[in-house]
Amino acid sequence: MRIGQHRPSVDEHAALMRSLLVFERRTETVALDEALGRITARAVTSPVDLPLFRNSQMDGFAVRASDIAAVPAKLPIVGEIPARPGQPAPLAPGTAVRIMTGAVVPDGADAVVPVEDTTVVDGVAVIETPRVVGEYVRDRGSDLRAGDELLPAATVLRSRHLAALAAAGIASVEVLAPVRVAVITTGAELAAPGVDPQPGQVYDANAIAIVSAVRAAGASVVISARVTDDHDTFRAALAAATDAADLVITSGGISMGDYEVVREVLEPLGATVTTIAMQPGGPQATAVIDGVPVISFPGNPVSTQISVEMFVAPVLRELAGLPAARRQSRVLDTDVRSVPGKRQLLRGRAVGEDGVTVVGGPSSHLVAGLAASDLLIDIPEATVQLRKGDTVETLAL
Amino acid sequence: MRIGQHRPSVDEHAALMRSLLVFERRTETVALDEALGRITARAVTSPVDLPLFRNSQMDGFAVRASDIAAVPAKLPIVGEIPARPGQPAPLAPGTAVRIMTGAVVPDGADAVVPVEDTTVVDGVAVIETPRVVGEYVRDRGSDLRAGDELLPAATVLRSRHLAALAAAGIASVEVLAPVRVAVITTGAELAAPGVDPQPGQVYDANAIAIVSAVRAAGASVVISARVTDDHDTFRAALAAATDAADLVITSGGISMGDYEVVREVLEPLGATVTTIAMQPGGPQATAVIDGVPVISFPGNPVSTQISVEMFVAPVLRELAGLPAARRQSRVLDTDVRSVPGKRQLLRGRAVGEDGVTVVGGPSSHLVAGLAASDLLIDIPEATVQLRKGDTVETLAL
Repeated sequence: MRIGQHRPSVDEHAALMRSLLVFERRTETVALDEALGRITARAVTSPVDLPLFRNSQMDGFAVRASDIAAVPAKLPIVGEIPARPGQPAPLAPGTAVRIMTGAVVPDGADAVVPVEDTTVVDGVAVIETPRVVGEYVRDRGSDLRAGDELLPAATVLRSRHLAALAAAGIASVEVLAPVRVAVITTGAELAAPGVDPQPGQVYDANAIAIVSAVRAAGASVVISARVTDDHDTFRAALAAATDAADLVITSGGISMGDYEVVREVLEPLGATVTTIAMQPGGPQATAVIDGVPVISFPGNPVSTQISVEMFVAPVLRELAGLPAARRQSRVLDTDVRSVPGKRQLLRGRAVGEDGVTVVGGPSSHLVAGLAASDLLIDIPEATVQLRKGDTVETLAL
Repeated sequence: MRIGQHRPSVDEHAALMRSLLVFERRTETVALDEALGRITARAVTSPVDLPLFRNSQMDGFAVRASDIAAVPAKLPIVGEIPARPGQPAPLAPGTAVRIMTGAVVPDGADAVVPVEDTTVVDGVAVIETPRVVGEYVRDRGSDLRAGDELLPAATVLRSRHLAALAAAGIASVEVLAPVRVAVITTGAELAAPGVDPQPGQVYDANAIAIVSAVRAAGASVVISARVTDDHDTFRAALAAATDAADLVITSGGISMGDYEVVREVLEPLGATVTTIAMQPGGPQATAVIDGVPVISFPGNPVSTQISVEMFVAPVLRELAGLPAARRQSRVLDTDVRSVPGKRQLLRGRAVGEDGVTVVGGPSSHLVAGLAASDLLIDIPEATVQLRKGDTVETLAL
């Protein structure tokens, strides 16, 4: 923290993020098979009537309703119309034709008598109940007319929407392209998982943490790079990132110590480096480089993960049509101390319907503790002490 | 419906489905980058202590706590330890060493004094506050010990779990393989979307409906085939499906009419073909062919989609660690008539917090109406009439 500077609150920093994370949305056309969960870029109108043609709702007999006004009616069966390609011959007055569900109702017929309401004797259908015109007939366009809106813009495509598009013969759909994110983790101490670390090295947990959180929030990761604290290396990674992505997220290198590559490179480029009133995750930086927002989180893995969850994931989820993380009031099963002047996000686990227990300590290196949690306990800045039985706000992970 | 046969209720049919949809789960090992949303096949223990080594929680000075018991203490600064690979030299008594967050705390040092609590004068750190042993030092293994459980079996892998695996140096994880589903849509009348249909043909909406509903429920689709009502063609598709999949889903061809290829082929193989007390979606069939469950839904697209939602998706979602569809009581904004003796699933749309309106009619061909809905209104078998203001059970789509 710089002495004398205002220390932004979590809400102020979240508002800043929202103002930065505004993207010109590109669109792309994808096959239905690739469209699940995507968002329609514009309204889709049906090119056809649905149903495409007048068809039978039942297995039965297509008739003229006027021919069975007086019952019992006996109509000679003149043929059969399966649900197959082909246009059946018109139905002559005084006759019936066997018809299958979904088959074309022939010209001349205006009702269908279900097979279970018909007796067949020597090629004659004996019908005991009159039917009104249109009964068990699905009219062309009775679901939707050609030119009508089939789906509005901004529809998150579920199976039922894809089915409706397919039913109208539409094989591809214009959808919003996902926000493209580049991730750069920084630090000379970082080793890739799966490789034996040297003394003083730690495995890079932030790359997979940010990459997978971004994907879970519906955006796509176009670059994931790991760099040391060398300025030129970071500058090169940053240039590639701003070139390819709508948003760049970095971790590490923004505190007030030495060897803080992100701060040292970005600050001369106009970045705002600050410490917000949040624990963990105090150090934060934001910049716009070559028109692309660059969001920088601290290197401690818990700080980075909570920062992503608080500031980036909510915006990306909204842009991807995903629901917001659930907030819920829960009752503490233990006493909790907090830090005055900082909004603290403790790791916790739900207990029953509305209870919560604290998992691990507040320190920002406890990645296993975070993994064992299923929510964050959100303690306001001014709160210093909470008692067992107190109600706290929680945020589902 | 066959006269004299019991007509199963929705709950009975759902119970039958649950008894059929039991799969031997295969496992596979995937890289962390591919593991988001997957389910751990077994518990994962950490191969290392976390943290890997004793390191500093702050930018500051590593000292012996006993050297600053009497303040102000003045300790010559003997060097600097960045967060970089390498093992620092032990700290001599009566000295301090500059240290960065995450850097190795040298042997001999047992506390870190934050830089903001220190004044540096001519290469000497002036410290005004005593520190207890261990202050601002993260001990090796303080998050987790080697051999401790990092993640339990059956963990649905979120970003925080992947981060914990990465932090422990684990680069891949054994997860449950998704249930493999084959989809066969049947009907001589079906045309592929994007192709001009002949008279009497309809576009196949069921293929994409089932395929995408299965994927949304966390299973994988290994085959999607469209066949006519020719027996041999269907038999060949079925053989390929049971060979490749854990579950086969068919649509069409199971009613009591003629040209019902699924019923005609499966019934001699021991299939149960029935009509359940549900509208839409009455005709249903189940079989086990070559040890593989085969679930057959009617061809009407709305019937098929509602059948998938009622009988298959809940089981697949549970197997994939996805949450169940939300059920909620809502207040009708209109009168509704229902069919006696059938559980009716009307298409509806949420109105405000707890209201619901009916979308379209009850007929099973209204695919656009289903697409415009966001929930199903679940009306019990015995209910015939509901009034505006009545409370109904709804199932989110």
